[in-house]
Amino acid sequence: MGLTIGVDIGGTKIAAGVVDEDGNILSTFKVPTPTTPEAIVDAIASAVEGARAGHDIVGVGIGAAGYVNRQRSTVYFAPNIDWRQEPLKEKVEARVGLPVVVENDANAAAWGEYRFGAGKGHRNVICITLGTGLGGGIIIGNKLRRGHFGVAAEFGHIRMVPDGLLCGCGSQGCWEQYASGRALVRYAKQRANATPENAELLLSLGDGSPDGIEGKHISMAARQGDPVAKDSYRELARWAGAGLADLASLFDPSAFIVGGGLSDEGELVLDPIRKSYKRWLVGGNWRPVADVIAAQLGNKAGLVGAADLAREPDPVM
Amino acid sequence: MGLTIGVDIGGTKIAAGVVDEDGNILSTFKVPTPTTPEAIVDAIASAVEGARAGHDIVGVGIGAAGYVNRQRSTVYFAPNIDWRQEPLKEKVEARVGLPVVVENDANAAAWGEYRFGAGKGHRNVICITLGTGLGGGIIIGNKLRRGHFGVAAEFGHIRMVPDGLLCGCGSQGCWEQYASGRALVRYAKQRANATPENAELLLSLGDGSPDGIEGKHISMAARQGDPVAKDSYRELARWAGAGLADLASLFDPSAFIVGGGLSDEGELVLDPIRKSYKRWLVGGNWRPVADVIAAQLGNKAGLVGAADLAREPDPVM
Amino acid sequence: MGLTIGVDIGGTKIAAGVVDEDGNILSTFKVPTPTTPEAIVDAIASAVEGARAGHDIVGVGIGAAGYVNRQRSTVYFAPNIDWRQEPLKEKVEARVGLPVVVENDANAAAWGEYRFGAGKGHRNVICITLGTGLGGGIIIGNKLRRGHFGVAAEFGHIRMVPDGLLCGCGSQGCWEQYASGRALVRYAKQRANATPENAELLLSLGDGSPDGIEGKHISMAARQGDPVAKDSYRELARWAGAGLADLASLFDPSAFIVGGGLSDEGELVLDPIRKSYKRWLVGGNWRPVADVIAAQLGNKAGLVGAADLAREPDPVM
Amino acid sequence: MGLTIGVDIGGTKIAAGVVDEDGNILSTFKVPTPTTPEAIVDAIASAVEGARAGHDIVGVGIGAAGYVNRQRSTVYFAPNIDWRQEPLKEKVEARVGLPVVVENDANAAAWGEYRFGAGKGHRNVICITLGTGLGGGIIIGNKLRRGHFGVAAEFGHIRMVPDGLLCGCGSQGCWEQYASGRALVRYAKQRANATPENAELLLSLGDGSPDGIEGKHISMAARQGDPVAKDSYRELARWAGAGLADLASLFDPSAFIVGGGLSDEGELVLDPIRKSYKRWLVGGNWRPVADVIAAQLGNKAGLVGAADLAREPDPVM
Repeated sequence: MGLTIGVDIGGTKIAAGVVDEDGNILSTFKVPTPTTPEAIVDAIASAVEGARAGHDIVGVGIGAAGYVNRQRSTVYFAPNIDWRQEPLKEKVEARVGLPVVVENDANAAAWGEYRFGAGKGHRNVICITLGTGLGGGIIIGNKLRRGHFGVAAEFGHIRMVPDGLLCGCGSQGCWEQYASGRALVRYAKQRANATPENAELLLSLGDGSPDGIEGKHISMAARQGDPVAKDSYRELARWAGAGLADLASLFDPSAFIVGGGLSDEGELVLDPIRKSYKRWLVGGNWRPVADVIAAQLGNKAGLVGAADLAREPDPVM
Repeated sequence: MGLTIGVDIGGTKIAAGVVDEDGNILSTFKVPTPTTPEAIVDAIASAVEGARAGHDIVGVGIGAAGYVNRQRSTVYFAPNIDWRQEPLKEKVEARVGLPVVVENDANAAAWGEYRFGAGKGHRNVICITLGTGLGGGIIIGNKLRRGHFGVAAEFGHIRMVPDGLLCGCGSQGCWEQYASGRALVRYAKQRANATPENAELLLSLGDGSPDGIEGKHISMAARQGDPVAKDSYRELARWAGAGLADLASLFDPSAFIVGGGLSDEGELVLDPIRKSYKRWLVGGNWRPVADVIAAQLGNKAGLVGAADLAREPDPVM
Repeated sequence: MGLTIGVDIGGTKIAAGVVDEDGNILSTFKVPTPTTPEAIVDAIASAVEGARAGHDIVGVGIGAAGYVNRQRSTVYFAPNIDWRQEPLKEKVEARVGLPVVVENDANAAAWGEYRFGAGKGHRNVICITLGTGLGGGIIIGNKLRRGHFGVAAEFGHIRMVPDGLLCGCGSQGCWEQYASGRALVRYAKQRANATPENAELLLSLGDGSPDGIEGKHISMAARQGDPVAKDSYRELARWAGAGLADLASLFDPSAFIVGGGLSDEGELVLDPIRKSYKRWLVGGNWRPVADVIAAQLGNKAGLVGAADLAREPDPVM
Repeated sequence: MGLTIGVDIGGTKIAAGVVDEDGNILSTFKVPTPTTPEAIVDAIASAVEGARAGHDIVGVGIGAAGYVNRQRSTVYFAPNIDWRQEPLKEKVEARVGLPVVVENDANAAAWGEYRFGAGKGHRNVICITLGTGLGGGIIIGNKLRRGHFGVAAEFGHIRMVPDGLLCGCGSQGCWEQYASGRALVRYAKQRANATPENAELLLSLGDGSPDGIEGKHISMAARQGDPVAKDSYRELARWAGAGLADLASLFDPSAFIVGGGLSDEGELVLDPIRKSYKRWLVGGNWRPVADVIAAQLGNKAGLVGAADLAREPDPVM
């Protein structure tokens, strides 16, 4: 079918990449992420043009953090960009002269892993993205399942704790508040504040205060045995694994793929997640158990997945 | 494609019914439910033979409470019958000389509603069955989604409350413990025990003691304004609606269909469920909102759905 | 023993009042509340001097929001004023030339109610103050129980919900986050946002938006039957009552006295609190049950209580 | 004041012991625990007579698991013996011809530790008893605080988890369901069932099955590093410590004394409890922090405490 371009809209950079049918990235081009919707369209167009040079491109797939409609054309709402009912497909098509599809970024990453990464050979997989927040995507019967209105797989916002932590979405107790990079940092800060004697190494990696703790410090300290850092990962895993057990009851996939920045830590994160998952999996003794495996594409998953989804025919409504 | 027979294995009776392609039941035959696996095969065969007389039947669909494998042949495990890796398809086929498929009973009921009841015209619906327990089925893209291993849609066992009530499944805090007929009765008993002055009518309908309260008393008392009965329904709805909001974040269907014995109460149950659902729905102000509607087939849904699933080709693995 | 002066340090005003041995306020004097610790000492001194004129005063009692030491001299920490290890007794004594005792404000209010208000005649009462936050005081055996270090009765910070809402104290799930004026407003905003169709009256009392809802609107709307306003009070009462049931298991008082701004609503608040209290009270059927009664002194309780505590001998360490 | 006899009514044996004013046990006598209230009075009398021989006794103190009235005469209710409004003082006095006081057994144990064990020198201590269940006692100002009606310090039944585990008391989420010997065994069974690969040693100590796990196996296995056993203690400590933090906010004692069978494990139990306690203690950085210390009297605390309470004058009502 030819080459397509995937676009990944990140917090600081917009990356466009030319991707072939086997998921190889042939060229990339990055521009800074502006703040207004109009400037973002400009930036996307620039990135696409930059990456496109010398390639014969048949379509563009854009991965965007937000609720995208079923027709893959309009962003209903985005948490970090001022998009409300934004007709992104139309606007970008007008600029680049290519067919464009818009996709939720976690859906795009899930599709990337399914097609070219850890999900290859599976027909039914659930991907979760443990980054700053928690997102995911659903593959059932070899298809990305967007939901009837396009907003399925909002895993981060199922309620884990009744009357729990406030979430930016307006609800309380959302999974994302307990299993994400932000949650990990909160766990470490709380514990370092309450028991600094158990966080000496961790505190020494930052400015010495609990408030100065960053994600990278926790990873480093945990590998060297810092009790608070290890305990923070354990807490994260407790919630991540319990949520996967819920998803197993609901979706019964052949595998769970765990991606996102936290998954870069590998077994430091995955091993305790698996333990918690098995702890809470219902019926684990007499049913086939889905594996929990690491994503393989790293932060390329979204770009590659978005590019590949541009090749997929429009979902029938 | 011709007529098929649906079999519904209930706690006291096994019902077989001849069903046409439009979901009409042409004849039924019931036998008592025995206790041993072998006797149940006998009873299923008797019911099928009883219903079959005078009809040209092309297949049999059995709805069974339990975990059924993806091939629709073997029951991994059942909570109320001593089935462990039970090759039910094979055994019944040997007795009735017809192709047999086995299906989880809540899946069968969901399919029945989707094809011939409240779900007609929808492509993506989630059905929940509020009976003694809580079950459900997933229809995405016009197909029943069984999961990779056949055990998806175990809605009753997602964890609503960390460290919550013990469940028969071995886990804690399962949705079924908070949103089901059993939960409703527990709510009423607890409240009537703590504040009998608010349950005078409710208590008068049974033997006068909190322990004597049954589901039918709660329904009757609630309609007449008994405070404890009304409060018990409100509590049930609080949990049922919050769970539907979770399912909306995950599946994003066009509608939720609520069936099972509790749904026979109609708006007494559905109206507060809708309120709680909207209370907890994430992003309800800027995304299309799935309706919560009542099932239409009553306790026939499972039988009709099982019969119809016998016409569906085997799911590709 | 003569007259004493009670000082109540509020968010906007510092009030001093001359109080006799029967709890009557003979004169009061108010000054605005400054922001720095030193200016607050000045303001306390001015208020005391203003109230004192023409009276023969034997001591001063100051009610302060904060953790006060057992000797009633130093404020360890205050949430709203920059007091850290503040020797308030010493500073004010140097200015007014009278013996001074410092007391936690909720303790002072509890003592006021015990001596001259709803607690008269009781020997063992627990007072809770439902204001913007949640505080309280413990009277056992006719004595105010401050704890060994002076910081007992921090009722607002017992954990009601594991992994629950973040609290300003650094912990999570504190009772104050679920049962206080702030909680009531949050309940109403969340509900009005999710189901504005049930909050038409409530929304009409403010600027029309959920964010514009204030406490007084909720009270007004609830009295006129607004569903969201009523539901918000019900939610508040659910948590307040459950916490009182815990306190009954711990302290077993003869009565609970409910004061603070929310208690001004009277039975609108108290009646559902009592229902929830009885719902959760352990052993309510075979043990004597403490009453839940309304405070009587309104916002004078703290001033009167602080004045009276100035007459109490220093607690033995 | 002379010698008194303490009586400890256990599940299998009733022990009576002569105790001097320094808490020394001079003689003991044990009889089996019968099942009916009348036979228990006989047995108590026999035990008292057996221990009494050759001593000049001035009174008897009985520690009983149950709700005892403020006058220390009547058991309102007991969970394990069929006592309802049982006038135990009167009945035993009629048999032994000595003044008798009845006391809640956990109160008696707390008093024993306060007077002769870990609480010596403290004025304000909270004792918790981690046995099969969870009980405790309150010492404030050198006095045992029974509550207004005699039923204070029912620590085991404060609600830790809203909508949590059912408790024998009829409530849900009681602390005792999460921090007690029974809870520890449940934790181990659940985990060994879910992840037997992490419980090989633990399972080998019993009959090989999760259901065969007993408390003593968990202790033994934890000391040898069994992951499930260690994790079960960690879970127990998580809840025990969080509850102590709540009690610190309420009572602000100078120390917490941890007794009961679980405390026999020493630091294996106490160290993680302290960590969790500090994790959840509110204001730990700027207030004096009560120590968490081990009880010293073991299973003699109840008998010695009951004997000593027989010397205490009747509490004024």
